[in-house]
Amino acid sequence: MRTFRLVIACPDGVGIVAKVSNFLASHNGWITEASHHSDDQSGWFFMRHEIRADSLPFGLEAFREAFAPIAEEFSMVWRITDTAQKKRVVLMASRESHCLADLLHRWHSDELDCDISCVISNHNDLRSMVEWHGIPFYHVPVDPKDKEPAFAEVSRLVKHHDAEVVVLARYMQILPPDLCREYAGQVINIHHSFLPSFVGAKPYHQASLRGVKLIGATCHYVTEELDAGPIIEQDVVRVSHSDSIEDMVRFGRDVEKMVLARGLRYHLEDRVLVHGNKTVVF
Amino acid sequence: MRTFRLVIACPDGVGIVAKVSNFLASHNGWITEASHHSDDQSGWFFMRHEIRADSLPFGLEAFREAFAPIAEEFSMVWRITDTAQKKRVVLMASRESHCLADLLHRWHSDELDCDISCVISNHNDLRSMVEWHGIPFYHVPVDPKDKEPAFAEVSRLVKHHDAEVVVLARYMQILPPDLCREYAGQVINIHHSFLPSFVGAKPYHQASLRGVKLIGATCHYVTEELDAGPIIEQDVVRVSHSDSIEDMVRFGRDVEKMVLARGLRYHLEDRVLVHGNKTVVF
Amino acid sequence: MRTFRLVIACPDGVGIVAKVSNFLASHNGWITEASHHSDDQSGWFFMRHEIRADSLPFGLEAFREAFAPIAEEFSMVWRITDTAQKKRVVLMASRESHCLADLLHRWHSDELDCDISCVISNHNDLRSMVEWHGIPFYHVPVDPKDKEPAFAEVSRLVKHHDAEVVVLARYMQILPPDLCREYAGQVINIHHSFLPSFVGAKPYHQASLRGVKLIGATCHYVTEELDAGPIIEQDVVRVSHSDSIEDMVRFGRDVEKMVLARGLRYHLEDRVLVHGNKTVVF
Amino acid sequence: MRTFRLVIACPDGVGIVAKVSNFLASHNGWITEASHHSDDQSGWFFMRHEIRADSLPFGLEAFREAFAPIAEEFSMVWRITDTAQKKRVVLMASRESHCLADLLHRWHSDELDCDISCVISNHNDLRSMVEWHGIPFYHVPVDPKDKEPAFAEVSRLVKHHDAEVVVLARYMQILPPDLCREYAGQVINIHHSFLPSFVGAKPYHQASLRGVKLIGATCHYVTEELDAGPIIEQDVVRVSHSDSIEDMVRFGRDVEKMVLARGLRYHLEDRVLVHGNKTVVF
Repeated sequence: MRTFRLVIACPDGVGIVAKVSNFLASHNGWITEASHHSDDQSGWFFMRHEIRADSLPFGLEAFREAFAPIAEEFSMVWRITDTAQKKRVVLMASRESHCLADLLHRWHSDELDCDISCVISNHNDLRSMVEWHGIPFYHVPVDPKDKEPAFAEVSRLVKHHDAEVVVLARYMQILPPDLCREYAGQVINIHHSFLPSFVGAKPYHQASLRGVKLIGATCHYVTEELDAGPIIEQDVVRVSHSDSIEDMVRFGRDVEKMVLARGLRYHLEDRVLVHGNKTVVF
Repeated sequence: MRTFRLVIACPDGVGIVAKVSNFLASHNGWITEASHHSDDQSGWFFMRHEIRADSLPFGLEAFREAFAPIAEEFSMVWRITDTAQKKRVVLMASRESHCLADLLHRWHSDELDCDISCVISNHNDLRSMVEWHGIPFYHVPVDPKDKEPAFAEVSRLVKHHDAEVVVLARYMQILPPDLCREYAGQVINIHHSFLPSFVGAKPYHQASLRGVKLIGATCHYVTEELDAGPIIEQDVVRVSHSDSIEDMVRFGRDVEKMVLARGLRYHLEDRVLVHGNKTVVF
Repeated sequence: MRTFRLVIACPDGVGIVAKVSNFLASHNGWITEASHHSDDQSGWFFMRHEIRADSLPFGLEAFREAFAPIAEEFSMVWRITDTAQKKRVVLMASRESHCLADLLHRWHSDELDCDISCVISNHNDLRSMVEWHGIPFYHVPVDPKDKEPAFAEVSRLVKHHDAEVVVLARYMQILPPDLCREYAGQVINIHHSFLPSFVGAKPYHQASLRGVKLIGATCHYVTEELDAGPIIEQDVVRVSHSDSIEDMVRFGRDVEKMVLARGLRYHLEDRVLVHGNKTVVF
Repeated sequence: MRTFRLVIACPDGVGIVAKVSNFLASHNGWITEASHHSDDQSGWFFMRHEIRADSLPFGLEAFREAFAPIAEEFSMVWRITDTAQKKRVVLMASRESHCLADLLHRWHSDELDCDISCVISNHNDLRSMVEWHGIPFYHVPVDPKDKEPAFAEVSRLVKHHDAEVVVLARYMQILPPDLCREYAGQVINIHHSFLPSFVGAKPYHQASLRGVKLIGATCHYVTEELDAGPIIEQDVVRVSHSDSIEDMVRFGRDVEKMVLARGLRYHLEDRVLVHGNKTVVF
């Protein structure tokens, strides 16, 4: 069923819900899902509606025009999207296949509602798997001594494919700050620890050293500061003294791929609203 | 902060949210929490609003009068409650103390927003614990050969205390059908299995015999059919071959008390809407 | 690291551990993992050792011969396996790809230590995916009016590939009793409910009807009685009123594939001991 | 059933299990539970046996004497305990009652196998609850300007009661270094975060600021470095944007008390072996 998704953030106040509901009702809009959140600390209000497209008398453009006065009245940061227009996603990976294979399989089984424009990798290992899915694969090696050309090429490919979302599916390279800024809120990373614990390299080794009893994974938006962006989703799995670092890595793979898939899904469904360094996930 | 809770169920249709939101906005109502659910299978719509009492120009009675026309228009099953009027709760227990002690402690720590009118038990074991909390304790023994007098007394006590909620905190006796009917949707039970598995007596023994790898507990409204009422909350805990039935009972106790406390809390906060044999928990 | 796995079940008594440990120590066996379990109810004792193969002066055959007197003394049901001899696994699937894709990916990433001899399916949909992995794919359609020829062919293929393990990765057909008997303890199924709840067809629909708050999956050995065999592994995921049956099916897929992968792994590593209708999983 | 618990840590090598098992078997020891762990990284071996006391021909002292040569041969760090000798525990609390009430209830229900010698608190709030259980309560206020006298009194009380275990059940004061050193491996703390995240004060506020999707609690041995000691047990609970800090505190209380109760139970059952800054929990 084709729906429109109306996503709104604005300073809190009386009458916002009524105004928006009225607007939708006056156009006969059939709401299939509605979520609200008042954030006491920031004083902001967040809202997401999913509306049957066939119940409304107009398309996205006309909707935008008609809704603009309300948006202005309440100083809304807002967007409306159409499920008929699939988001274009670029996946980036390195050598480890578990997150990439998981996302490709979900996409292939119609579980992820998006177009996967291409896969970019700094290694060639996963080419065959990607191409079996009928998706272009670009091998962009990263020279540790001069990473700039690689990231220029990455940037060119992302632009060329007009990507709206970039997913770092265990890409294992740190994106340059300008790319992080340019695609703020559009680049999704999976970090293989329960952040803020174990930022940076080899988190499972860090976890083993500290002797934690649960390990986790964190899906977050990439910002300039490493592993510090707004968190979309997290999960953990129990480990014990009997688990070696290799076991942790193996358990962790399952958590990583589940958390990344859930986080990406929330993003694709316009369920994630970023405010400051936190997210509202409806 | 004192709030009113407006809880609505009605056949689904366009304009319900708008009408309700408008009503609230026109009276300057400050919504602190709003939840909606459209049930595709039944074609019903469910809604819960929490509104700051001090933002509205009237009390419960005036609210009811003003809202009645809208309720009628949409054939709503609805209620409005005031957090200033604490619900009166009767707890029933037997010999096992874990659920009762847990609820009493939460109440004593201001975590459960209700009045506990009294505790009724078919044994005298827990009297001292209850009385330490300053709560009346009634010992109503149940004669296995003739249970009627006991349940007549239970019924009298529940009425005498004008209870709105009865909680079977491991009471271990089956309530008679007429009591179930009279207090439909008001009697909350904790069953020590993950229903619908292991209905009836000795569920941990049943679980051990079947060799399950997780055991659970279920909080549900009591109906005439044993352990078959609408489920409010469930949870599980992992067990293994190395756990004896005694271990399962011990692990189970923790799940039981957590699940019952959550279920009761949802009920007290008017978060649970029963429809048919299922619940919506906002 | 190549290891031998010594797996023992026998009536409980004093001195078993000492006898076995002594035997291993007297041959200089380096134990890397040891597990024991005394089952009070049945009076049986279970034991599993993992021993570095290079620490022992002999191979499997000589080990068997040397150990036989001890085994006889304590009436042991026992086996010893060598990690250098990978188990031969036949996977069976139908149309749904999630469990099969997950197992194939784990095998392809060296996470599952086995040989996958072939995939048998009653539909042709997953052929390309299987063949990309370099694994033979057999399409054996099942005629609903006469299933016997299909299962004769299945049986022939399993024998032809000399399979030690058959995995029903959402195969959706009930194996005939004689096949169940012949491969007792060797056929692993994933059932898409938290057994013993919701045996049989359409468990997610059953779960939705009952209004449960968690759904699950169960990995078990196949026996003649449907969905009643010894349970190897189970897990659950939380659902709410807002989840449709389609959502449940989607959440369930993730639980199914995780539970099946864990169950199969335990089996491949000789961690599962069946006793009566229950399992010990070391 | 009275048992002896034999707990051993030593450098790994061939023949340890055989030697110990032989010793037990030669004295007709009936092993009810046995656990082993070889730590690859440290090269140490850990072992715990639970043996029916009535199956052995001698008591603790004679056992110690008889076992000493083996312990010496393998340079074992070891202990043997008798379940008939309950450990003496001192509980320390502040104003928050949830952990203390939980431990007292478990002890009162015979779920925690120990003697609770007394409760020490820097506030008087929980006196009545403690005294209802028949346990001495000491109010030892801590002067923020000079904490020394208070901790001298705490130390005196702990010694006076000959405590083997001190439990900081949300005590909210940092123990002085000399006390930490003197009772190394005997003081158990519950920290209200998933360590190593959110060390120190107000962890729920820190968690809210960082926007994590799970919050947790950590039970660990106290060392001189704040919140950095060996972790015994951890757990987490899911939170969302809709949960205020007050909600987190409330959810957290349930995790804290469960994690502390499990951690303490493991300690009391001699299941925890500390090695470096990590624990083996059998």
